[in-house]
Amino acid sequence: MNQKAVVLVSGGLDSCVTAAIAYQDYQLCFLHINYNQRTEEKELISFQEIAEFYNVKERLITKLPFFAQIGGSSLTDTNISIPIYNKNEGNIPNTYVSFRNAVFLSFAVSWAENIGAKKIFIGAMEQDSSGYPDCTEEFFKKFNQVIKYGTKPKTDIQIITPIIHLKKYEVVKLGKKLNAPLDKTWSCYKNSECACGICDSCLLRIKAFKQAGVKDNIPYAIKVLW
Amino acid sequence: MNQKAVVLVSGGLDSCVTAAIAYQDYQLCFLHINYNQRTEEKELISFQEIAEFYNVKERLITKLPFFAQIGGSSLTDTNISIPIYNKNEGNIPNTYVSFRNAVFLSFAVSWAENIGAKKIFIGAMEQDSSGYPDCTEEFFKKFNQVIKYGTKPKTDIQIITPIIHLKKYEVVKLGKKLNAPLDKTWSCYKNSECACGICDSCLLRIKAFKQAGVKDNIPYAIKVLW
Repeated sequence: MNQKAVVLVSGGLDSCVTAAIAYQDYQLCFLHINYNQRTEEKELISFQEIAEFYNVKERLITKLPFFAQIGGSSLTDTNISIPIYNKNEGNIPNTYVSFRNAVFLSFAVSWAENIGAKKIFIGAMEQDSSGYPDCTEEFFKKFNQVIKYGTKPKTDIQIITPIIHLKKYEVVKLGKKLNAPLDKTWSCYKNSECACGICDSCLLRIKAFKQAGVKDNIPYAIKVLW
Repeated sequence: MNQKAVVLVSGGLDSCVTAAIAYQDYQLCFLHINYNQRTEEKELISFQEIAEFYNVKERLITKLPFFAQIGGSSLTDTNISIPIYNKNEGNIPNTYVSFRNAVFLSFAVSWAENIGAKKIFIGAMEQDSSGYPDCTEEFFKKFNQVIKYGTKPKTDIQIITPIIHLKKYEVVKLGKKLNAPLDKTWSCYKNSECACGICDSCLLRIKAFKQAGVKDNIPYAIKVLW
């Protein structure tokens, strides 16, 4: 039996492909965090479908009211509008949830120590993300140091960021190559039946699939020419 | 008006004295985390009383079901017995909640970034604690690096551990000197009206007060000779 690895799976494209990468060498344990994000309903369906696809036995879904309580992000506060593509160019968009990856990774480390997993996979991307500071390689390197000093001496847990230097279209290509269930993933910032096709996240996704030369099979509310 | 500082306040002795220290220079913002720990009811009362004492306006109490979900600690799992004093000498006791301080600090950083606080005070103690790895000075140093790289470029948040090298009796002495409301704090691992006086945590507290030459005014279920 392969060693266990915890994979942080939102249900989006990046975490799905990250799971596909981890699946090559590890027994997958999926962690999903419900922090009252706008699209939780859709994300959770995606999470479960991806987990089914990889036959994941250990799944942990946990509720985290904290981020919605403190507010300040359009992802958790419906009074703040979702950004329109390019409007925030150069700045960190209002979808930013402060220090989110640190919170998520802390959960993942805690769970990993409890279940004996040695690796934590997270689908963060440094360049092709929205400029979030907790998505940089340096951040993860420093976090690995925190794990080393903050867990039991014999615990040996390490964060793996396999797509950190990929562009979004490369993630799509890699996902296709690894036969990842890309059509099960959810990227849109809206919680509708179909992806809106016009939010920041949809446009990034559509562009990435086009650049990768891959057709995106999820339903869109607008007509996308592939 | 002083700068804001977030103080992690459980309601115990250490966090109370830490708040007293922070109170000298900062406008206090209290963060309390309810993770279904056995003594949450008592801790929350202490938290509110300490907050009242320092007239704290910004208080955040947040629920975190995660640790109870993953289990493995006698603090959150009532099927695991509370340790008896000295029984676990040399080992990390079963009260250990894996990577708890990393989770708590991540919350504190996220809140601090949102409300514009620059300091985070935590009442961790390296030597006179239970050997928890996430209570060491090195751990907090590494965490400060994570904050530097994982928050917005202009954010300048730092963790302060003012009692990290103190012994428990020195914390009591310092608390007394600073007029901290020690009689409002709760240390016992039991959720009873009076502190049990015989659990690991009570015995450490009683010993510390005795060594400090300070009378502990909280009610005990047993007769303590001061």
